[in-house]
Amino acid sequence: MYQLIDGKAISAQIKKEIAEEVEAMVASGKKRPHLAVIIVGHDGGSESYVAGKVKDCADCGFISTLIRFEDDVTEETLLAEVDKLNKNEDVDGFIVQLPLPKHISESKVTEAIDYRKDVDGFHPVNVGRMSIGLSCFISATPSGIMELLRRYEIPTSGKNCVVIGRSNIVGKPVASLMMQKGYPGDATVTVCHSRTKNLKEICLNADIIIAALGQPEFLKADMVKDGVVIIDVGTTRVPSTETKSGFKLKGDVAFNEVAPKCSYITPVPGGVGLMTRIALMKNTLLAAKHEIY
Amino acid sequence: MYQLIDGKAISAQIKKEIAEEVEAMVASGKKRPHLAVIIVGHDGGSESYVAGKVKDCADCGFISTLIRFEDDVTEETLLAEVDKLNKNEDVDGFIVQLPLPKHISESKVTEAIDYRKDVDGFHPVNVGRMSIGLSCFISATPSGIMELLRRYEIPTSGKNCVVIGRSNIVGKPVASLMMQKGYPGDATVTVCHSRTKNLKEICLNADIIIAALGQPEFLKADMVKDGVVIIDVGTTRVPSTETKSGFKLKGDVAFNEVAPKCSYITPVPGGVGLMTRIALMKNTLLAAKHEIY
Repeated sequence: MYQLIDGKAISAQIKKEIAEEVEAMVASGKKRPHLAVIIVGHDGGSESYVAGKVKDCADCGFISTLIRFEDDVTEETLLAEVDKLNKNEDVDGFIVQLPLPKHISESKVTEAIDYRKDVDGFHPVNVGRMSIGLSCFISATPSGIMELLRRYEIPTSGKNCVVIGRSNIVGKPVASLMMQKGYPGDATVTVCHSRTKNLKEICLNADIIIAALGQPEFLKADMVKDGVVIIDVGTTRVPSTETKSGFKLKGDVAFNEVAPKCSYITPVPGGVGLMTRIALMKNTLLAAKHEIY
Repeated sequence: MYQLIDGKAISAQIKKEIAEEVEAMVASGKKRPHLAVIIVGHDGGSESYVAGKVKDCADCGFISTLIRFEDDVTEETLLAEVDKLNKNEDVDGFIVQLPLPKHISESKVTEAIDYRKDVDGFHPVNVGRMSIGLSCFISATPSGIMELLRRYEIPTSGKNCVVIGRSNIVGKPVASLMMQKGYPGDATVTVCHSRTKNLKEICLNADIIIAALGQPEFLKADMVKDGVVIIDVGTTRVPSTETKSGFKLKGDVAFNEVAPKCSYITPVPGGVGLMTRIALMKNTLLAAKHEIY
C-alpha cells in the first residue's frame, strides 16, 4: 500500500510554524516580515497566484504590499519601482509576478532585483549559489519538493533520481539540489526532456521520479518500478464536467494506475502546488531574519 | 578504430585564431586584450598554472599583468586589490588563482570580482546565468570540453551522457551545459558521484562519458559499451620511472584498454587540459570585445 504525500497537511503545518515564529518575533519587539508583490496587467493565472500570496502573508502574520501596473507600463517605470523596493528598508523581500508583457525583458527585471531581497530565487546570484552549494534563496517549487522529502524522511542518498523536464523553474534547480552533498540530496540524478530517447527504460530504473513536463497523465504504470517514489509537479487545467468551475487540475502522472506501484506519491492537487506557495513564505521569513544574506 | 580527440592540435588552432583576431583588432585601432592574474603564495601547482597563463597571453597577443602577494596577505588587502582591478578600465578580465591560504575566504574573494570581468566564470552570476541558459563567462574546463565536442562535430542530442564527479568546477557545470537546449547539448544527462551505487550499469548505458573524479585509471573497459565517446578530465600526477621529472600525468580512464571500444577518446595529457588553458584566453577576448556584458 502506498503512502500519500500530503502537501496540504504539511503546508498547513509549516504555515502554523511560521505564524508562531512571527508572533514570537513581534512579541520580542521585532517588526513583522514584509513581502511586496508587483503585478503587471490582469492575466487570470497571475491574479489568482498573487491573491493566494497576499492571503498566505495574512495567514503567516506578514505585512504584504501589492503594487499594480497596467499592461502598457514601460520597462523603465517597472525598473524604477524595482529600484525603489531594493532601497526600501521596510520591505524584506519582493517578487515581480511573471509572465510580463512582451515589451518588457523578464531577465532584465529579474536581474534588477537585489538578490538579497529575491525571495522568488530567480536571480542568477541565487541560482548560481544554489548550484555551488552555498546558502541562498531557493525557488519555490524545488524548495517545496525538498521539504516534502525531508518531512517524510524519504531516503535519497545513492538513489537513482530521474527528473523529467529541464525548465529553469523546476527541472534544472531540483536536479541541482538532488545532486548536492547532504540530505535531501546525494542522489544519482538523471535529467530527461523532449530529446530523451529511452525515457521508459530510464524511468524503470528510477527510485525517485520528479515529473515536471506539463503533460497531463504522461507517466504510466508500465514506466515505473515497484516501490518508486513519485513527485508530481504537473498542474494542467483540463476541461471537466465533474466540477463547478468546469475544469480539473491534472498532474503529469496517471495517478490511479501508478499509485499502486509506489512507496510514496504526491497527489494533484494537494501535493507540490501547496508546498510551492508556502516556500515563498519561508523565503520571506528568512529574508526578514537576514539568515541568508 | 577509435578517433583520438587531439586537444593539442585544436588548442593550437584556437590560439592561432585568437592571435589573428587580436592583430586585426590592434590594426583597426583597438587596444590589446589585457588579463590580470593575482597569485598568493608560492604553491608549486599555482606557480606553473600562472606561468602557463602568462605565456598563453603572450602567444595570443594579450597584455598580462601578474600581481603577487605573499601567503600572509590579509583578506582585506586582497579584496582591495580585487576592487582596484574591478575599477581599472585598462584590465578587461582578471582571475585570482586558487587555492588561497586558509585565512582567506575563497567564495568572498570570488564574489567580490565584478562578474563582467570574471573570466574564470566562477562568480555566482556567471554560474547562475549558465544554468538558466543566458550568455555568460563559462568556466575553463566545461568550456574546453564543449569546444572539443563542437570541433569534432560529435552528436549530443538525445545521447545518454554520464558525468562522473560533481565538483563545482567540472562535474556540475558540464552537466548543466550538456542538458541545455541546442548543440552541443540536448543530451540526457546523468551525474554520478561517490554515493552512486550502480555506476558500472549506468556507464554501460552511456553514449558519452565525461570522467572527472580524479582517480587515475578508474574507468575500465568492462564499464563502457562499444562506440562510446570518452572525455577524460582527470590529471593526476603519479610517480614514474619513465620520465625525467619522475612523474607522469594519468587520466581517470584506463586508456589502453578503454580506447579500442571508443568512437572518440581524449588522451591525457594532450586532451582536455590544453583546452582548459585556451578557454581562459577565449573568455579574455570576449571580455575585451564586450560580447557577453
